[in-house]
Amino acid sequence: MSLFPETDHLLPELAGRLEAVAACFERELVSDLSSVNLLARHVEKYRGKMLRPTLVIASGFAVRTGAPPSRVIDESLNTLGAVVEMIHMATLVHDDVLDEASMRRGGATVNSLRGNETAVMLGDFLISSSFRLCSTVGEPWLNTELGAMTSQLCSGEILQLSHRGDFNLDSETYFDIIRRKTGVLAGACCGLAARLAGADPIACKALRIYGEELGMAFQIQDDVLDLVGDETVVGKTLGIDLQKGKFTLPLVTHFSRCSADSRDQTIRAVERCDVAEVLRLVESTESLVAARETAEALVERAKDQLEILAECPARQLLRAIADATIEREY
Amino acid sequence: MSLFPETDHLLPELAGRLEAVAACFERELVSDLSSVNLLARHVEKYRGKMLRPTLVIASGFAVRTGAPPSRVIDESLNTLGAVVEMIHMATLVHDDVLDEASMRRGGATVNSLRGNETAVMLGDFLISSSFRLCSTVGEPWLNTELGAMTSQLCSGEILQLSHRGDFNLDSETYFDIIRRKTGVLAGACCGLAARLAGADPIACKALRIYGEELGMAFQIQDDVLDLVGDETVVGKTLGIDLQKGKFTLPLVTHFSRCSADSRDQTIRAVERCDVAEVLRLVESTESLVAARETAEALVERAKDQLEILAECPARQLLRAIADATIEREY
Repeated sequence: MSLFPETDHLLPELAGRLEAVAACFERELVSDLSSVNLLARHVEKYRGKMLRPTLVIASGFAVRTGAPPSRVIDESLNTLGAVVEMIHMATLVHDDVLDEASMRRGGATVNSLRGNETAVMLGDFLISSSFRLCSTVGEPWLNTELGAMTSQLCSGEILQLSHRGDFNLDSETYFDIIRRKTGVLAGACCGLAARLAGADPIACKALRIYGEELGMAFQIQDDVLDLVGDETVVGKTLGIDLQKGKFTLPLVTHFSRCSADSRDQTIRAVERCDVAEVLRLVESTESLVAARETAEALVERAKDQLEILAECPARQLLRAIADATIEREY
Repeated sequence: MSLFPETDHLLPELAGRLEAVAACFERELVSDLSSVNLLARHVEKYRGKMLRPTLVIASGFAVRTGAPPSRVIDESLNTLGAVVEMIHMATLVHDDVLDEASMRRGGATVNSLRGNETAVMLGDFLISSSFRLCSTVGEPWLNTELGAMTSQLCSGEILQLSHRGDFNLDSETYFDIIRRKTGVLAGACCGLAARLAGADPIACKALRIYGEELGMAFQIQDDVLDLVGDETVVGKTLGIDLQKGKFTLPLVTHFSRCSADSRDQTIRAVERCDVAEVLRLVESTESLVAARETAEALVERAKDQLEILAECPARQLLRAIADATIEREY
């Protein structure tokens, strides 16, 4: 169930807490309609890594060193874990519609099995369930922050769509896109968990920034894998970014470095979706290496944010998660 | 701006309050991204009738006879008006994706102008903005109720999709679909507005049921117009229900009344999307008239709910809205 089995020993409580998160997730999605329940069961199969709930739980532990255990805080954190996972599932379901993807975690996507209409509605059902669940924590600021966060998330997707097929996309806009569409959710996991656990504003902010930088590194790694990954290892349809005109860091960097001739050649290779040729060209300017280095730098900056926290197993886990994010091949 | 200009004189305050709702709506959707603002401006053009904010404001007035004016309650109601309108806009944008519709309020749809991907994301942006806005009222129960309501709304759409092309759809399931997908939102407009305005639980429940029955009558009228309406008057693509295999009350009633021969004939006419022939067959069993009578009965039941409220201009307006719902040709 865990993303990084090699680091889970750092926080033995994590496995049990993730099970509680999963139970909360499943309870929320029970419907009186069998057609809805069938879809909810399908979505649970997507819930493999549970990175976001892991960030919530670990952040909660990381700021509570020395404080007595609190059942109320624990339950709030479990609920937040289920909420962020549900928001993440909604984005996956809608992303698959956007990408016309047929494979997710090695299984068929909802859109390919049941059509785009059902996938759109299932995503909406997950979003509204997540907001309902979130309101049960009874903290109005949590709803406000999560609503603002998901609006940012959508604005990132809209920004990316408005630059589709744009060979002039610059790195500043690329970073703005990935911060919004991936960074802010991971940032919210850590920052809001810290606030729920009673941390001071400085610790909350540090954890929010840790999450944002980690999320951005994660997205860059995803973008790199979409170019160089092995479909059977990653478990989802690859090469989609090029096909859909979503140009990511390796290509953006390449365009800023290459000659006019190479630029023309690259544009032609992109237009015929020749991933192997695009990869050869991108590697000729070392832009793939550069993207990996950028992800590494983001991970270092993320880990720096943890310095203000007292050393504890949860902090070690957060550090290990940051490292593992860019080491993964899936 | 109003749905029923002929009845607006009943509540002269309504026009000003709807302007305040519109201002709240527009403020919430301002983004730092021009691509998001452009889309938000496009959606504002859909905001023609403002039926749902009208229900919110009128319900608020209807339960407050004699009570001193309260700025806090007024502002909460304006916010709720903007929230429900935003949820409604989100459903329109996603419905147009689902229906592959090209026309809405006489203009082009977002999906036809900017593609399905952008329309899906814009709908998500509207949903999350509505939840953020809702949380600014500072009443956690309001978020819980609205989240549960939108989940019901999605489940209604999923239920309808799971019966697509199902010639055995029965009227019980049809009513369950339209109660979820249209009734509960209108019911929430009235019931939650009453609660915000401080009404007792009995008045809140009566107004919720009024809204639900009204919403269902509205949906039946919409379904009838999709078969018999004039596209230039209605202002949106028609005949879509048949084309998408969504069978509505006239057809469901017809199948329960017609001979085996007529059933075969009807199925063939539906399969080749021959709206004129379907209409002829449906009229042969008087099933169109029956659907209109069902809508009228729902309107009467809706108005009955208002009996427990003291007579006042807002109650008159709610009664007039119920009547106008099934008299409209658009």
